[in-house]
Amino acid sequence: MPELIKETEKDFLDYVKKMQSYNEALNLIYWDLRTGAPKNGLEQRSQVIGVLSSELFKMSTSEEMAGFIATLSNDESELSTITKKTLEECKKEYEKNKKIPAKEFEEYVILQSNAENIWEQARAASDFDMFKPYLEKLVVFNKKFIGYWGYEGNKYNTLLDMYEPGVTVEIIDKVFGELRDVIVPLVKKIAECGNRPRTDFLYHPFSKEKQKEFSLKILDQMGYDFGSGRLDETVHPFAIGLNPGDVRVTTRYDENDWRMAVFGTIHEGGHALYEQNISKQLLGTPLCTGTSMGIHESQSLFYENILARDRAFWENNFDLLKEYADGQFDDVTLDEFYAAINEAKPSLIRIESDDLTYALHIIIRYEIEKGLFNDEIEVKDLPAVWNDKYEEYLGIRPENDAEGVLQDVHWSGGSFGYFPSYALGYMYAAQLKNAMLKDLPKYEELLRTGDLNPIREWLTDRVHQFGKSKKPLEIIEEATGEGLSATHLANYLVEKFSKVYQLSE
Amino acid sequence: MPELIKETEKDFLDYVKKMQSYNEALNLIYWDLRTGAPKNGLEQRSQVIGVLSSELFKMSTSEEMAGFIATLSNDESELSTITKKTLEECKKEYEKNKKIPAKEFEEYVILQSNAENIWEQARAASDFDMFKPYLEKLVVFNKKFIGYWGYEGNKYNTLLDMYEPGVTVEIIDKVFGELRDVIVPLVKKIAECGNRPRTDFLYHPFSKEKQKEFSLKILDQMGYDFGSGRLDETVHPFAIGLNPGDVRVTTRYDENDWRMAVFGTIHEGGHALYEQNISKQLLGTPLCTGTSMGIHESQSLFYENILARDRAFWENNFDLLKEYADGQFDDVTLDEFYAAINEAKPSLIRIESDDLTYALHIIIRYEIEKGLFNDEIEVKDLPAVWNDKYEEYLGIRPENDAEGVLQDVHWSGGSFGYFPSYALGYMYAAQLKNAMLKDLPKYEELLRTGDLNPIREWLTDRVHQFGKSKKPLEIIEEATGEGLSATHLANYLVEKFSKVYQLSE
Repeated sequence: MPELIKETEKDFLDYVKKMQSYNEALNLIYWDLRTGAPKNGLEQRSQVIGVLSSELFKMSTSEEMAGFIATLSNDESELSTITKKTLEECKKEYEKNKKIPAKEFEEYVILQSNAENIWEQARAASDFDMFKPYLEKLVVFNKKFIGYWGYEGNKYNTLLDMYEPGVTVEIIDKVFGELRDVIVPLVKKIAECGNRPRTDFLYHPFSKEKQKEFSLKILDQMGYDFGSGRLDETVHPFAIGLNPGDVRVTTRYDENDWRMAVFGTIHEGGHALYEQNISKQLLGTPLCTGTSMGIHESQSLFYENILARDRAFWENNFDLLKEYADGQFDDVTLDEFYAAINEAKPSLIRIESDDLTYALHIIIRYEIEKGLFNDEIEVKDLPAVWNDKYEEYLGIRPENDAEGVLQDVHWSGGSFGYFPSYALGYMYAAQLKNAMLKDLPKYEELLRTGDLNPIREWLTDRVHQFGKSKKPLEIIEEATGEGLSATHLANYLVEKFSKVYQLSE
Repeated sequence: MPELIKETEKDFLDYVKKMQSYNEALNLIYWDLRTGAPKNGLEQRSQVIGVLSSELFKMSTSEEMAGFIATLSNDESELSTITKKTLEECKKEYEKNKKIPAKEFEEYVILQSNAENIWEQARAASDFDMFKPYLEKLVVFNKKFIGYWGYEGNKYNTLLDMYEPGVTVEIIDKVFGELRDVIVPLVKKIAECGNRPRTDFLYHPFSKEKQKEFSLKILDQMGYDFGSGRLDETVHPFAIGLNPGDVRVTTRYDENDWRMAVFGTIHEGGHALYEQNISKQLLGTPLCTGTSMGIHESQSLFYENILARDRAFWENNFDLLKEYADGQFDDVTLDEFYAAINEAKPSLIRIESDDLTYALHIIIRYEIEKGLFNDEIEVKDLPAVWNDKYEEYLGIRPENDAEGVLQDVHWSGGSFGYFPSYALGYMYAAQLKNAMLKDLPKYEELLRTGDLNPIREWLTDRVHQFGKSKKPLEIIEEATGEGLSATHLANYLVEKFSKVYQLSE
């Protein structure tokens, strides 16, 4: 009965559209909370968040939703591609939420909230033992959840799949191994070579207003559409897509280090270009967002590291930067500047790391998470395991838990399987750059002349437009002709840092 | 069965709290739309508004709501005062919405939206005939609605009651008549006296940033709590209370006339003080907002006109203003300044009017609306009726419809009965000031020293805290010991403008 199916399809899409409306309202509330919402209104605002989120949760697990899934799954051939993919998403969400007993999930939510609080205190006190019992419980809960959800191959795969669908332990082991085997010796070589770029000029006072004006110029150059967005200030920068016509960027200013705002804005701008250029056909469906954490990060890292740390990009923009700065670059050559913004210096803290060692921070976290969920590492041993790995991979050892195992918020919220996306994104970015060069052989020339639109268009054609209607590896394979690979990032890092540090062969 | 009632009361309050959450989300969306939301996201955002509003409408007219009203109305004595008042509000809303046949309401909503569009075009073309058929239909619809809702005494009372519950044609006829009989001869006397304040210095360039800094100082002086609010820029300024801990003010800057932003911010600040100081006990109920348009306007007009156009206020703030201005007041005496900001000059446009003739603009609209709904005036005759009244009351005659009957947006949206609130608010404000003087005999001294907190506290005690839990006239009677009265506003206007224009007795 194709007519009945068509009617159910319509009802389903209306239902999903309503869910997306709640979602958009929630996203606006989050944006507002992080860009200046008055503090005394927060308690009441969290009630509003509670009402809207629980409505959304109810809709995603309702009998009505179960009915849609049952009816439409029977006649998939009658459905449009968008409906099919939407159905798939809803089904995944439905099963994920339905399989956990309500009471357990409630306990887990309370645990998460307590654990985040305790983690903050533990980090301030640099005392892992405070946090340990909470982390242990979080791991136990997640192991139980994996039991409910099931797994293929490796238990940890189930967690990875929540952030990077289709990417498994088997795949990651291979690429992370390759990457580690290139980066670790490269870091050593740099440490031993003795060359150090001049960086004193980075830290001069640079007014917030001028940094903002310059950042806006760069966003504009990248192809960010200000009719579909805005730039605001915040403490922890982010980009957020309310809908493709309203994708907001936020940034943070450090008047003694302009790089925080400028590279931060470029990074968030990369995320924003993705969300601004999703096909309008996906509006009102759960497909109207980035397909995964990793692909999202590939867009931000492409712009922040690969494009905006390229010498050709600054051939066009260094003079512009000087116009906004207050003389700090006047006696600096372009080569000195280029070397300074590509300085590689191992650090203990992930979010302060350079672009060379960043992946090592991620690999360490991946190895630990994999060990935890395969019962090869125990929570109680984490500080030692952590510190040993830092010493082995980066050649530096944390002196306490605050600069070691307690530095990231992720685990305290129960986010296991999230970290790998950061490094996957970096690999995807290098792969995309490599494929892009074939279609845009004058890539460097484009950077040199500030004509960045062909680059944005290439990314829109191959990545942005599809939103969540294609899986991460599908996008990468279609755009690059190969699966996930560490080779291009490895080559890129070796080439760039050999040049910056003038390493001999 | 008191336990059953207690349980139903709890369910009802939860239900109402959920409605308030939708309402708060909608209010945040409106604030955002008017303070910089990217234009390309608007179409999708209006979908979100549609979903949330229709959810809210459904909840207010649901069978569940009908059940609460039926059950709880039977045992009112068992309920808390807040529940009783909340129930009253919900019942009023329920009946208002339920009595109009759904199909008619739908037609009306479409008519409203079309009429607003056409009104904009008609005003631009200064052609009342374009707008006439729409206005006629809007009046017919509202007459039908009055038929459904019923009325007491005068048909127009039903419309008045939507904005100013308890205030009737009988009451307004009396006070508007008294007011008109004082203002009209006063306006003539001023026109004939020949004295004109010097005003040239008002219009010098005054930078937006400096205007903002000064406005923030004044808001702070008024007692506006920045932990519960923020000041943003917009095209049509407003204040909005999301909850008492988050009440936002917006303003507009004219670099060639600082009065727009400064007096505008003070006006909206008056509204905001009201919303910030509503009792926290009313949170999550429909009582947690201003009780009526008129009482709200009494707060904004008290601060804008009565307090901030007082000479004593500027004894404290004129030097401060000079600090922010770029020399424009350097050769101006405080008396000249005081006269300039109190200039009275009849104008054709309500929103550009001075504080003396403002009430006349409102009285004209009231007389016309009353005539329309009592079949004494026909829509087709409006331009002539309008122009005649302007000539009679203000001594000036519009030359076309754009500067006459087409100037206000209100009627195009079907808002009849709204206008009187503006003048009621002004009368309430003068009454409150008069009562305040008895408790704060050093009122002028407080202005002179910038110690405005006792004034804000007096208003919180008598007005703010009650939110919608008391009716407008209840508040006025308890605060001033008398009902609505024109006397105090009339006295205030005569006294002030006789002084400013040095009128002989």
